[in-house]
This record gives sequence, structure tokens and C-alpha cells, in this order.
Amino acid sequence: MENDKKTTDNEEDSQVVNPWEVSSTKKIDYDKLIDQFGCQRLDQSHVDRVKALTNRPPHVFLRRNVFFAHRDFNEILDAYERGEKFYLYTGRGPSSESLHLGHLVPFMFTKYLQDAFKVPLVIQLTDDEKCIWKNLTVEESKRLARENAKDIIACGFDVSRTFIFSDFNFVGGAFYENMIRVGNCVTYNKVVGIFGFTGEDHITKVSFPPVQAVPSFPSSFPHLFSGKDNLRCLIPCAIDQDPYFRMTRDVAPRLGYNKPALIESLFFPALQGETGKMSASDANSAIYVTDTQKDIKNKVNKYAFSGGQDSVENHRKYGANLEVDIPFKYLSFFLEDDEELEHIRTEYGSGRMLTGEIKKKLIDVLSEIVERHRTARAAVTEEMVDAFMAVRPMPNMFN
Amino acid sequence: MENDKKTTDNEEDSQVVNPWEVSSTKKIDYDKLIDQFGCQRLDQSHVDRVKALTNRPPHVFLRRNVFFAHRDFNEILDAYERGEKFYLYTGRGPSSESLHLGHLVPFMFTKYLQDAFKVPLVIQLTDDEKCIWKNLTVEESKRLARENAKDIIACGFDVSRTFIFSDFNFVGGAFYENMIRVGNCVTYNKVVGIFGFTGEDHITKVSFPPVQAVPSFPSSFPHLFSGKDNLRCLIPCAIDQDPYFRMTRDVAPRLGYNKPALIESLFFPALQGETGKMSASDANSAIYVTDTQKDIKNKVNKYAFSGGQDSVENHRKYGANLEVDIPFKYLSFFLEDDEELEHIRTEYGSGRMLTGEIKKKLIDVLSEIVERHRTARAAVTEEMVDAFMAVRPMPNMFN
Repeated sequence: MENDKKTTDNEEDSQVVNPWEVSSTKKIDYDKLIDQFGCQRLDQSHVDRVKALTNRPPHVFLRRNVFFAHRDFNEILDAYERGEKFYLYTGRGPSSESLHLGHLVPFMFTKYLQDAFKVPLVIQLTDDEKCIWKNLTVEESKRLARENAKDIIACGFDVSRTFIFSDFNFVGGAFYENMIRVGNCVTYNKVVGIFGFTGEDHITKVSFPPVQAVPSFPSSFPHLFSGKDNLRCLIPCAIDQDPYFRMTRDVAPRLGYNKPALIESLFFPALQGETGKMSASDANSAIYVTDTQKDIKNKVNKYAFSGGQDSVENHRKYGANLEVDIPFKYLSFFLEDDEELEHIRTEYGSGRMLTGEIKKKLIDVLSEIVERHRTARAAVTEEMVDAFMAVRPMPNMFN
Repeated sequence: MENDKKTTDNEEDSQVVNPWEVSSTKKIDYDKLIDQFGCQRLDQSHVDRVKALTNRPPHVFLRRNVFFAHRDFNEILDAYERGEKFYLYTGRGPSSESLHLGHLVPFMFTKYLQDAFKVPLVIQLTDDEKCIWKNLTVEESKRLARENAKDIIACGFDVSRTFIFSDFNFVGGAFYENMIRVGNCVTYNKVVGIFGFTGEDHITKVSFPPVQAVPSFPSSFPHLFSGKDNLRCLIPCAIDQDPYFRMTRDVAPRLGYNKPALIESLFFPALQGETGKMSASDANSAIYVTDTQKDIKNKVNKYAFSGGQDSVENHRKYGANLEVDIPFKYLSFFLEDDEELEHIRTEYGSGRMLTGEIKKKLIDVLSEIVERHRTARAAVTEEMVDAFMAVRPMPNMFN
């Protein structure tokens, strides 16, 4: 809201990005966001380094700049090169029954990082956050957290190095101690500056930022990282979460803790076009992991904003505008084959490929991903959820 | 601080009472406090009812109006009369190594209530609060909590119906869920109105009030009160804690919980005179439970403000001013024998008894209390502390 105030004078530039709102009157200006937030651009040298250090092809989200910004990612890679391990921290606010494809982006990428670097991972389900912001009951927030955990587990995480926790179940002890340590370093005026709270907001909002901050510190997880207080933390997330971790990084040195490193993604665009994140309240703005093949076909054909021209003649003549074309954007996230994507770029961009053809390709790609997820999700048992969420040592988490 | 602003215009009336500050330019005006806070005066009818219901003499703190105000105490007695039980909740912010006599007042009274009504008791040690307000480390706050628990146990509580917990150890689970429920009902502006926070205060202060609120609700203690969501709670405390429970009572109906009842005491005055609570930073303002008999004798003789006259002649002629006499005040708290106290009131008030004589009596009474506490405290083992603080069912808590 602070940002809101600063930018509403200039209607053309209006762009609001915070953990609870992403909106823009035109395409999100990511360069401006990097400047405003003070993070760094991820470049080819990072991609090359990751490839060399992990001896495997970099993930498509790295190759295609879906993860495009970072904080201290070099320090993580330097440490890894010296033989030091780190841990990954990501999370989700469980506000809806089922996930859409945009929700899967950070988890797909985090799974790749876990496999490539062989490091432990903590996944925070902020059921408390949803009870605070979305006015859900405690019970409903906890139920959604557990349902969402199943979708997350279906992404293929390794249970021997992955701890999934819900705040309502896990806040307490060492975790609560760190919440107080962090909150003792942050004034009300400071969180108002970062998050734009007002006097009419409930005090739970004011007190929430430390909850999302403290998984950045290994001492919050004594059952995992006891005696490893210097272990570094890398956070893969969408860039709207940056404010939390700016606050966290500001506080860390005062507590004698390492600053967490970040690797930050673009927003996965809505079917209707790239002016923000997808809206959970509009079912037609996103492909859900529960959508049938028919749903997917219908949504893509009916709602996916096209950069193609208004007639076949004009399309053949001018080609598609790939800058705004949602089917092409979606394929750049989810079509693994680089050569095929380049072929589509050339053919569709030149007008030789028609909108109907690229949409058909997208329907095939998305249907396969969703079908794969559905199968994996159906195989997730309550016992598996319990296993991932058990507070237990993970003796093989670095092997 | 809100109170401060309202009253500094009128120097004569200046009186600040909140959970972190009690100060006044003259004697605390308790009637004014009752009006300001909106609680009720405790009267002889309450004392008589307690006596009848419990079949034992009312505690000296009840007989002498040390506990002088209440909220819904009648409802508690009505329920008890119908055969319904309730539970007691009191607490302490463990800011100092050892307690002074003023700290013992609520615990002595709570022990009496526990014995008289045979009800369970939860005692909250707000080590987080002290880490927030007193800038103590987490570790030091936790250590003080455990040391203070020993002094509390030495007051004679029944381990079969007493659960002592430190926030750093116990916040989480059902307790944290209630913290979020309470915080979701309270705006920042509201806590500013109640507690006077400013924008430069750390966010931990803003988020603390729900921590002290939720022990008022049985569902915060599933190991004790599972399935007893309608159990009423009675809170014995000094009246400076009233703001927390005004907030709690305001919120309770919106959550479907009973409002906690309160029974509230005067402040135990400083040796130097009755303008507020004793200051922990001035060792000569209070009698500590670690003071030797020699310390007590020295403090009483040297610092206890006397209402006696400036010469023996004048004293014999005018008598002592009992309204301001600290030895007499202290005896009215701690001398059990009503007849002897009346005798002293008459003799000292008329001038037949001299200041030296009442001070000698006080030294004897205090020395005995402190010596008894020292012996009891020395008998408290680490195992006993563990037993009181264990999260366990208490099957005989209502028997």
C-alpha cells in the first residue's frame, strides 16, 4: 500500500507488488522491481556455474530466466564450491483447496535444486497467515495446509531430506524464540514501511512477518540443524515475497545469524494476460492441477490471451506478438525441449504457425503435466503426509 | 502512556497505571482506577459468600480489602454454588532473580483460593514479555522463569492441580491457535488505545497482548481441559493487569468463549511510601525473599516510611497517621491476627505505641515469613520444577 501511495500519482507507472497483492495497469516491469527492492539480476554466469557445480543441465526455469533475480546466490555457490552445504527454504500460504500451475513453479524448481545439490529442504505452510488475511477459521486453514501438502509431496520431494511444517502445528520452542528475537529488532514503523499496514489492521498482521522470517535461520529447527548454526539458507520464491526477506536480511546480522540468500522468479501469468499473478477467485484465470483435459482445452482455447493477428491474412503477414502471447509464455515455462521452443518462436513469430496450432501444443503439454501431477497426487497417502511433517532428525539429509 | 497524556494536564491528579508502569505523584486513587477501568468494588457480601461456600475463614487479603476489585466474581461464585467448577489463572513476568514480598501477594492469595475451592490452576511465566520489554536475552529470560518457578512452588501449590508454564516452552499448538484467534479480533489502533504503544515500539510489543490473553480460555490447554470448553476462569492479579483482561473480555464472546472473571488487588507499597508499586531497580524499596533477618531489620528501621510524629511528645499527643504509615500497612497485609492488628491500630493510632515498637513487630512478622519462604524454597528440587511444568493431564484436579 505504501508503494500504492507512491505510484498512484503517475497512473501510467502504477504497479503494486507485495506479498498479498500483485497488480499493474500494464505488464509488470521487473527491472523496476529489481531496482525498487534492491536485489540483483541473475545472469548467464550463474546458470553456467550451477551447471558446472551440479554436473547436470540447468533447469528450464533457470535457462529461460523464469528465476531472474537473486540476493547472495553467489555466496551460496561459493560456499558449495568449498564443500559447504546449505539448506533450502520455501513455502506456501494454503488459501485454496487445490493448486494452479503457477503455484507449482517454485516447488518444481525447488525439487530440482534439492536433487541437483543434494541438500535438505524445509517447506513452511503458513496456515496462520491465511487465517489472518483470508478470514478462514483455524480448522479450515489447517485442513487446507494438509491438502496442499499432498500436492507439494506429489512434486516428488525426497522425504529423507524434506521437512514440511504448518505454522499452527510447529510454532513454539526454538522457532518461537527466534520469532521474538526477530520481532525485537523491528519497529512498528518499519513494518508499516515495508508492508503498508494501517492502524485498522489486526495485530496478527503486524506480528506475522517474524513467522515467515525465522525459517531462514537453522536454529529454528533444532531437530534438523542442531550445532549447525552457520548453515546457509537459500530461498527459492516468487519476487513478491522479497519484502519479508529484506526485513529478515536486515535483522540477521544483529542476531549473529547469516543472511538468507534468495533466488526469485517472475510471476506465472494469468490466462488473460500478463498484468499480475493469477487470481484464486477467478477459476478461469488459471489452469488448476485438478482440471480435466476438457477443462484445459476449453480454458486455453477460450481464455488464453493471444498475440496472434486478427485475421489469418494479417497473421501470415505480421506474425504473432510473442511479448504478449500467453500460449507462448506458458510453453516457455513448461515445454522442456529448447529446440522445439525455438522452432515455435520462429514459426509462430513469423506467422507461419497459427494461434490454433500453438494452443493445441500448449493443451498437450499442460494436459500431460496435469495428468502426471494427478497420478502422483493420488498416490500420496496420509501416512506419507505424516512422514514428511514429522518432527524428526534427517540423518541422511546431506548425503 | 495514553493515561499519562490524559492526566498530565492536571498535575495533582497525575496517576499512571498500566502493566509496565505504576506511578503517581500522590497516593494511588483506587476509586478513580475502578471508575477508569470499569471494574467493580469487592464488598463484605463477597467475603461472606466466599466464607459460606468454602467453610473456612476468608483469607486475610479478602478480610482486609487487599483484593478490593473484581469483574464477574459473582458469576464465578454462582457457578460454584450450582456445583460447577472453574479454574484459576495467574502469572508472573520473571524479570528479576528473586522475588520481593509484593510479588508473593497474588501467589499467597491464589494458593488460598486453590485450597479453598479445590480447583486447578495455571501459572504463566511470561519470559517472552521480559525478553521484549527488559531487553533480556532469550536464555536469561528462560533461566529467570525457572528460578522464579521455584519461588512460586515454595508458596505451597498442589502439584496435582497446578500447571506452571513458560511462554518460550509452551507457546504453540492450541495455545498459538488461540493467540491468532484473539489477535484477529484486535486492531493496532485498539492496542494503542489500551496500552499506549508508539510507532517506534518493536512489533513484539504489539503482538504480546494475545499471549497474556489466551490462558483465560480452557481450549488453550488441551492436555488439561479437553472437552471442557465452558469451564470458567478466575484471574487473581494486581489491578495494573486489568488492561490485558479488558481486551480479553471484549474479544471472548466473538470467539464463543466465556469472559474470564477477575479478582484484583491493591499494590503492595514500597518501603518509602505508597505512591506506586515497588521498583525492582531499587533494592532498598522492598523486602526480598532472599533478605537476611539483618537486612530486614535494617531496611524497616531505615527506610520504612513512618506516620509517627517527629517527637515522642507530639506522638503521644497526636498519635500516628495510619493512612501513610508503612509499618502499619505492611502489618495489615501480613499480620494474620485480626485482634492484634486492631490493638496496634488503636495503640499506635492514639500514640500509646511508638514507631520503634511497631517497627519491631513488623521486623518479627516479616522475618518469619521470609524465613519460612527460604526454607520452603530450599526444599524445591529441579525434579519438582519439572513435575509442575510437565505438560501432563491432571486427573485429580477437581477432587
